[in-house]
Amino acid sequence: MSLVLDPATQDLLFREARTANTFTDEPVTEEQIQAIYDLVKFGPTAYNQTPLRIVLVRSPEARERLVQHMSNGNKPKTSTAPLVAIFAADNEFHEELPELFPAFPAAKDAIFSQRPVREQNAGMNAALQAAYFIVGIRAAGLAAGPMTGFDHAGVQKEFLDGDHTPLMVVNIGKPGDNAWSARSPRRSYDEVVTTV
Amino acid sequence: MSLVLDPATQDLLFREARTANTFTDEPVTEEQIQAIYDLVKFGPTAYNQTPLRIVLVRSPEARERLVQHMSNGNKPKTSTAPLVAIFAADNEFHEELPELFPAFPAAKDAIFSQRPVREQNAGMNAALQAAYFIVGIRAAGLAAGPMTGFDHAGVQKEFLDGDHTPLMVVNIGKPGDNAWSARSPRRSYDEVVTTV
Repeated sequence: MSLVLDPATQDLLFREARTANTFTDEPVTEEQIQAIYDLVKFGPTAYNQTPLRIVLVRSPEARERLVQHMSNGNKPKTSTAPLVAIFAADNEFHEELPELFPAFPAAKDAIFSQRPVREQNAGMNAALQAAYFIVGIRAAGLAAGPMTGFDHAGVQKEFLDGDHTPLMVVNIGKPGDNAWSARSPRRSYDEVVTTV
Repeated sequence: MSLVLDPATQDLLFREARTANTFTDEPVTEEQIQAIYDLVKFGPTAYNQTPLRIVLVRSPEARERLVQHMSNGNKPKTSTAPLVAIFAADNEFHEELPELFPAFPAAKDAIFSQRPVREQNAGMNAALQAAYFIVGIRAAGLAAGPMTGFDHAGVQKEFLDGDHTPLMVVNIGKPGDNAWSARSPRRSYDEVVTTV
């Protein structure tokens, strides 16, 4: 009763949405990914940094190169998902800040001149955007399978460069047979929230 | 056409939702925060870490202590929002992992025995949960005002402990008069997404 969001959409985005381990053969189109991006690009980031970068792994050759860097438990699903995406943080996001954050164009030099500050910001804000994108994948009626179990240095060297840090690899598609593990328990409200 | 989510909900969660700078006096209730948590707690995190911790700053005395640590530009809205929450990452999240991730109870020691590994994981996964929570605030018909402009060490010392790292402070409430700055531009799809 406290939520405006209707129950069916609550199910679509959170309650019944699950991390899929198997997928059907139905392709994930460029139009679907564009529609997801054009929705979730509006999610807030600090100073409108928007440091998330996405590599869509579509060619069989690139897929094979990626699978080699996945942990053994993640190889089968990364091999068979209709689409696999690498989510990364751009540590040089500040170059475009004068255009992206016109309220304070000097932020590029006043706040983000030091690389360690940029790396910390890029990591947190790209993670925010990764979560918005996962919600967006579900908003497209698809299942997401985010994974952190891979050789991060290997994926960076193979698909990115020294300015881009991989965050996660995400399988995307319609869930297949036996797609779900048992739902793991969640922490209770009182374990997470305190009031002062 | 590529999204299952209806256009009104797209507006509610992303397109028309904005970071509010002013708020009405309408209180944000405990029931609303519980309903948000009970929805977004299902958002995925690595190994079901769920490291996000939330401090609701409800007493005038605590609010005053928090405002002193905010950057000058953030003090007025943090003083006047109906509710202010501190989002933090629990770097000792692994203690409960055997219960939270029964698929691999040994992960606690096999993967997360080193504090730097835990800090990196807690930071990224708490950021994912922070984004889910921001979406949840909007799903409750409220506006969120997430802020990173504050003395992080000061807020940690005042409200948390050495095991909890503050991520952001979030104003929560119904938007008030002149609540919105101009929408900053977003990066184009082609700037963000590449295909291999």
